[in-house]
Amino acid sequence: MVACSMKKLINEPDAVVDEMLDGMVAAHDGLRRLDGQEVVVRHDAPVEGKVGIVSGGGSGHEPTHGGFVGDGMLDGAAAGEIFTSPTADQLEEMVQACDSGEGVLAVVKNYEGDVMNFDTAGEMAEMDGVEVEQVVVDDDVAVEDSLYTSGRRGVCGTILVHKAAGAKAAEGAELSEVVRVAEKVIDNVGTMGTALTSCVTPEKGEPTFDLGEDEIELGIGIHGEPGVERVDHMPADEITDELTENVLDDLDLDDGAEVMTIVNGMGGTPLSELYIVNRRLQQLMDDYDLTVWDQWVGDYMTSLDMMGCSITICAVDEEIKELLAAPADTPGLTVTE
Amino acid sequence: MVACSMKKLINEPDAVVDEMLDGMVAAHDGLRRLDGQEVVVRHDAPVEGKVGIVSGGGSGHEPTHGGFVGDGMLDGAAAGEIFTSPTADQLEEMVQACDSGEGVLAVVKNYEGDVMNFDTAGEMAEMDGVEVEQVVVDDDVAVEDSLYTSGRRGVCGTILVHKAAGAKAAEGAELSEVVRVAEKVIDNVGTMGTALTSCVTPEKGEPTFDLGEDEIELGIGIHGEPGVERVDHMPADEITDELTENVLDDLDLDDGAEVMTIVNGMGGTPLSELYIVNRRLQQLMDDYDLTVWDQWVGDYMTSLDMMGCSITICAVDEEIKELLAAPADTPGLTVTE
Repeated sequence: MVACSMKKLINEPDAVVDEMLDGMVAAHDGLRRLDGQEVVVRHDAPVEGKVGIVSGGGSGHEPTHGGFVGDGMLDGAAAGEIFTSPTADQLEEMVQACDSGEGVLAVVKNYEGDVMNFDTAGEMAEMDGVEVEQVVVDDDVAVEDSLYTSGRRGVCGTILVHKAAGAKAAEGAELSEVVRVAEKVIDNVGTMGTALTSCVTPEKGEPTFDLGEDEIELGIGIHGEPGVERVDHMPADEITDELTENVLDDLDLDDGAEVMTIVNGMGGTPLSELYIVNRRLQQLMDDYDLTVWDQWVGDYMTSLDMMGCSITICAVDEEIKELLAAPADTPGLTVTE
Repeated sequence: MVACSMKKLINEPDAVVDEMLDGMVAAHDGLRRLDGQEVVVRHDAPVEGKVGIVSGGGSGHEPTHGGFVGDGMLDGAAAGEIFTSPTADQLEEMVQACDSGEGVLAVVKNYEGDVMNFDTAGEMAEMDGVEVEQVVVDDDVAVEDSLYTSGRRGVCGTILVHKAAGAKAAEGAELSEVVRVAEKVIDNVGTMGTALTSCVTPEKGEPTFDLGEDEIELGIGIHGEPGVERVDHMPADEITDELTENVLDDLDLDDGAEVMTIVNGMGGTPLSELYIVNRRLQQLMDDYDLTVWDQWVGDYMTSLDMMGCSITICAVDEEIKELLAAPADTPGLTVTE
């Protein structure tokens, strides 16, 4: 019943985040690390005349968040240890480094440690005269409260908040307007995921949870925390039906509504399988009389080496479409004009 | 010693390729399937006045090759069954669909079935008046002959051939010039890979080869075929040293030579681990007095759900740099101006 390998391409487990960030900034000219910090910022941060957009959280979800730093998305991303919140000091340094005087929006996934540390960091930065606003993403429709949250968890929908807020800030909008569009995306997005295997953290070196060779977990969290139910493994189409129906129940969209969809890989899933899920998802969108404006397929919000996927659906209006379609140039997402 | 999960996000094993292609063309407006064929082409193929660039091979290497169809790279990609060559008929249909009268270059990875079927397809198309040239990529420095090849295998370096030939064709160059730059890349690129786990094919549903929890395979092929040696699992830096030294021995570059590098994931490896490998690779490039012009990190040439990576190094001159830096807009690679 060992359903995953313990082997990893790492050196010392406690060096994973530091070495990963070095390899990331080496590969991408647009990124740099803050001195002595596990924080990645745009090479030109702070960008004069622009609201700063920052995010962060535990590592292990790559390309989230560092991979979304760049033109049109984030100005900075803080990387905590694997599945561990960044510290308030680290977050405050990031906020300071990304403020050009126009204020900073922190996009926070709803986990207790993240929200608390971002709160503290915001208060610290405000004492230094930085205007800081925070939005909390809670798009996971699977569970109301969870192991690490009051309320719902923040998962892959977060990337759409980065994109929309980043585009609005790039237009030169003021902080309150950037907050408004971030909240608008949060109000219109839902996600649910499934795990075929457990992730294996570098520190522990063994599966975070046990899942039999014939079982999958529906509604899984991105840290391997429990979902809604453990069921027999099913064909991809049935899994897609299950996830999609849960997300649609939550969103409660009108017939003919326009949406964008994401099939997100959990880190260990081949792209071919994500496309198979996307095929069924698009059939369902048609069956439910929804109009798909855009669809993404790939690894956006992962859970180390976990096999599985999540499905995100976001209702879009003209404003959200314009923001999501605006140019972006980051390691994890490129949108061309 | 079960080092991988047999669970997959699929429906029937024999529908994997067909369903994957449907999900892929749904997600990307720039792609369409040829009627009744497991072939993906640019939506506007054949492109008037441009040499067509095509590739193909067994499936299971996504985003290769369909993910590289688009502006500035491929005009068409044929998808065989998993790890199985496309048929000559399928390849001929693709060649015909991508010829606007300027001729077609087929970029073929060196596997016996692929080379033979592309040869036959080329002959068939030439009888219909299409000018067809073929280049064979054999960048894998690990083994001279292998399970499926006479001579070396074609692996991740193929993507650079797609890119350079695609850029040259987009400039409006004639077929002989496109062939010349493709051959130039092939002459200057080397790759070597490692597997931490075996891939699991949908049909077989169990590991293609057995690898102990404390072992890795160096010089692995992208179908799980044997490499150079099986060794004890090592830290990422040592693995990177081993792969890099083998590639550099083969390329035999002058001090100060300019190169581009790829750290390629095998499908089941988290991005964080690829960055850790890239960190060490860049240190080595510096140690060996090589100048790194560009570096890519991600999944380009995968082997289903295999954990592991490959390292590609390509010597670049002004011409190759210009071609690799030219704009491209495909699902698997976007290069902006």
